[in-house]
Amino acid sequence: MAMNDGKPVSVIAELGRAARRAAGRLAQCPAADRNRALTGAAEAVRSSAEQILEANATDFERARKRGISGAMLDRLVLDKARLEGIAAGLETVADLPDPVGRELARWRQPNGLEISRVAVPIGVIGVVYESRPNVTADAAALCLKAGNAVILRGGSEAVESNRAIHAAIVSGLGAAGLDPAIVQMVPDQDRELVGALLAAHEHVDVIVPRGGRSLVERVQRDARVPVFAHLDGNNHLYWHGSADPAMAVEVIANAKMRRPGICGALETLLIDRSCLERLPRLVDELAVLGCEVRGDAEACNCDDRIRTAAEADWQTEYLDAILAVRCVDSPDAAVAHIARYGSGHTDGILASDPAVVESFLDRVDSAIVVHNASTQFADGGEFGFGAEIGIATGRLHARGPVGLEQLTTFKYVVRGSGQTRP
Amino acid sequence: MAMNDGKPVSVIAELGRAARRAAGRLAQCPAADRNRALTGAAEAVRSSAEQILEANATDFERARKRGISGAMLDRLVLDKARLEGIAAGLETVADLPDPVGRELARWRQPNGLEISRVAVPIGVIGVVYESRPNVTADAAALCLKAGNAVILRGGSEAVESNRAIHAAIVSGLGAAGLDPAIVQMVPDQDRELVGALLAAHEHVDVIVPRGGRSLVERVQRDARVPVFAHLDGNNHLYWHGSADPAMAVEVIANAKMRRPGICGALETLLIDRSCLERLPRLVDELAVLGCEVRGDAEACNCDDRIRTAAEADWQTEYLDAILAVRCVDSPDAAVAHIARYGSGHTDGILASDPAVVESFLDRVDSAIVVHNASTQFADGGEFGFGAEIGIATGRLHARGPVGLEQLTTFKYVVRGSGQTRP
Repeated sequence: MAMNDGKPVSVIAELGRAARRAAGRLAQCPAADRNRALTGAAEAVRSSAEQILEANATDFERARKRGISGAMLDRLVLDKARLEGIAAGLETVADLPDPVGRELARWRQPNGLEISRVAVPIGVIGVVYESRPNVTADAAALCLKAGNAVILRGGSEAVESNRAIHAAIVSGLGAAGLDPAIVQMVPDQDRELVGALLAAHEHVDVIVPRGGRSLVERVQRDARVPVFAHLDGNNHLYWHGSADPAMAVEVIANAKMRRPGICGALETLLIDRSCLERLPRLVDELAVLGCEVRGDAEACNCDDRIRTAAEADWQTEYLDAILAVRCVDSPDAAVAHIARYGSGHTDGILASDPAVVESFLDRVDSAIVVHNASTQFADGGEFGFGAEIGIATGRLHARGPVGLEQLTTFKYVVRGSGQTRP
Repeated sequence: MAMNDGKPVSVIAELGRAARRAAGRLAQCPAADRNRALTGAAEAVRSSAEQILEANATDFERARKRGISGAMLDRLVLDKARLEGIAAGLETVADLPDPVGRELARWRQPNGLEISRVAVPIGVIGVVYESRPNVTADAAALCLKAGNAVILRGGSEAVESNRAIHAAIVSGLGAAGLDPAIVQMVPDQDRELVGALLAAHEHVDVIVPRGGRSLVERVQRDARVPVFAHLDGNNHLYWHGSADPAMAVEVIANAKMRRPGICGALETLLIDRSCLERLPRLVDELAVLGCEVRGDAEACNCDDRIRTAAEADWQTEYLDAILAVRCVDSPDAAVAHIARYGSGHTDGILASDPAVVESFLDRVDSAIVVHNASTQFADGGEFGFGAEIGIATGRLHARGPVGLEQLTTFKYVVRGSGQTRP
């Protein structure tokens, strides 16, 4: 490794230059090399299971002594089953279709020029994440599969686990004859290195944050590089009078309670006035599942199990077993509520009237709009992308689940036979 | 207009909020409304020709008194023919196919969910430009056609002309019953307003700079918003031994001299050693066209009309009647030169050996790669896009010519029949 003066900007610039060189060479390698690196990494994860679990035990002990909470400890801890999940995940990504080199469009101009748009890797991707050590493998695998180099910066709690998993990935790269600089880790936990990484627009093409709201907020605030992320998933369903009531109850309960803590979970139900009489049936179902319901005055009037909602409830992504319910007079009012309070993640309608459905899907400007299905389908796997690196609510390049396709960009290839421009 | 405290950030925030509201409503309007606004604007440009030309005469006089140079004066000046060009341009954009609502992909998941990816407007676009008043109409037309609101900030030299053209566009919006806030101008020429616009990431989704290098450089440096732009077009052609020599000479001459000042113009020819003996024939042709040739030692040895090139020549986008020529030993050396000195805009190969061609097109990582055709085809019109707002060398969302498609983004529409996620 070349020398640098140790300043955060210089450290990141050195990683960035190595990543850029590695990405340039990787773009010339066939898919088979990338896939061999992934399966090699999976083997290395299995064969170094003992070292990885030991490293993880060190992280775990240190975290426990620092009094870190149960949920975070659970995200941090690895066992044989989770490690096998990591290895299998690497193999799954290896088996996905190659996203590089796809012909996205092709046409012929009247002068005979054949123009095509071809998928190519983005280049260098920075991934900033928190305590889950599996992200080290998952994020590296997706970036590598799409032909990119990646610079990883995980959470300080998981530093030993991440290093051990990173070593396995580097061993996979080596087995495939690829440059170890394709997957690099920021060398230490100095927080200034994160700032330097977020500002490194010459060296990094896009940043993907993986973690809680405060991490994403910091990344979005400080990045001088495009970011694929979402800050909130304050998701809505609108229950219209034309919906089948049994279907509506089932979908709402699933959207809220299947896993209340994921970003695709339902947070606010907008119930059409004409459906209010069916609300107690829904509250029954939610009560069984342990879900608290907070509503506006009209909802509270329907069912005394519903507690009064405040303005803050419309703004809150609970990520918990709480549902806010607001009565609306019309599809227009539902669309207006979503425009005001929504976070542009996933919003849907339960209805059977086609005109109402199409107008809603057209007018709601969220990354994902859903008709008669659970918002919890907001997931790259459920979209058939094989895997996802996250969900984006930004408007450019990547929106919704970010899978392998969104980790590529494109170039134009123009094929002529001596054409000159008049 | 609501009151604000007159600070640049507040002025831009007020424009931004009005633009966001207008964009939200515009997204619900049919294409016919947008097209009627464009044809209405064309009519208004024609019917207010006298006022526009008067305003332009004011700008012109002021610029002339300030001692502004001939090229810039020429960019500034309007006459009846140029004004008719502006009006006709608005009508051309009205006639282009609607880029909004296109179904970009559709598939069915095994659980019966129908997922589609549908083109939607980006939202609010900021356009920062220099002395050409036609950009006011061209940029507004493309943004509006793609369903976006736009905030325009033109050059101080053209301020009266821009206001007059803007008034015609607003009149077209009015004739179509659309919100005038769809096309707004930054109200005065305070330079701090540009800074505030570039930083307004809450209000503006993308910035498009239109103008010279120093403008683009400033925008790229200061923007806290994605930018569609290119800084340089230091474009290359590689003349391989398998190329037809007559075709090569003709294409090189066109790529350099058709219009040496456009961003797609050729700047450096990489000539394979095996083609050196044909170089004098090319120099003959270029001499007739008034083009100076600068070369490395081997090129100079071939022809004493070639002057010695310095390192700076490989780095320079001349935008002038000068061609740099460097002798290379192999396709690898050509690719390496382009990777080192190129600006990722447009680079090409002249060759007939398919393996050499495909390897070059694959390995050169520029927005546009060209085989046996002039680099001057790097243009949205020549690509069949109907019109372009510029050419981008960034890697995300828009790359190469930025036409109507790239002024849209997408959302996912998920259609179900009561599916819940297991």
